[in-house]
Amino acid sequence: MKRLDASEVESELKELDGWSLDEGKLHKKFTFEDFRAAFAFMTRVAKLADEQDHHPEWFNVYNEVEVHLTSHDAGGISERDFRLARGMDSVVAP
Amino acid sequence: MKRLDASEVESELKELDGWSLDEGKLHKKFTFEDFRAAFAFMTRVAKLADEQDHHPEWFNVYNEVEVHLTSHDAGGISERDFRLARGMDSVVAP
Repeated sequence: MKRLDASEVESELKELDGWSLDEGKLHKKFTFEDFRAAFAFMTRVAKLADEQDHHPEWFNVYNEVEVHLTSHDAGGISERDFRLARGMDSVVAP
Repeated sequence: MKRLDASEVESELKELDGWSLDEGKLHKKFTFEDFRAAFAFMTRVAKLADEQDHHPEWFNVYNEVEVHLTSHDAGGISERDFRLARGMDSVVAP
């Protein structure tokens, strides 16, 4: 899986809602009603991540889940990150 | 739930394995075999957190789960943090 160049990342980001670049990684903060809703989201994403064999860096406190995506083996952002990002968005708004 | 003073925190910390103070919060990094094992741990802790109505700040990447515990309503570390810390340790080593 090759690393996307800056213009490819920029172009794909335009197709997404609420994602941006943060320290060279795809970044989004998801906010839910409460901890239970936040963790239900994480549980569904964990299954997705296992299926895609691609895992997020994520931080949770109470109703917030903050995600960073990068592809260490590609040395940057790859198509796998966008695939997982789209998957996360689908979990929230199927 | 009242805030514990420094000597109380110190004394309770001695009873625990692998926990320390980090930025005024109880802190521990758990390492697992892989993402699936790490997330299985998180799933069990999430249930515990809901039962205790006390939630961690936690960060996960692949097989690592880094936890910070504090009691915002007490303005520091309270007995609830130690209860959740002990609960997490029990999940790992019942």
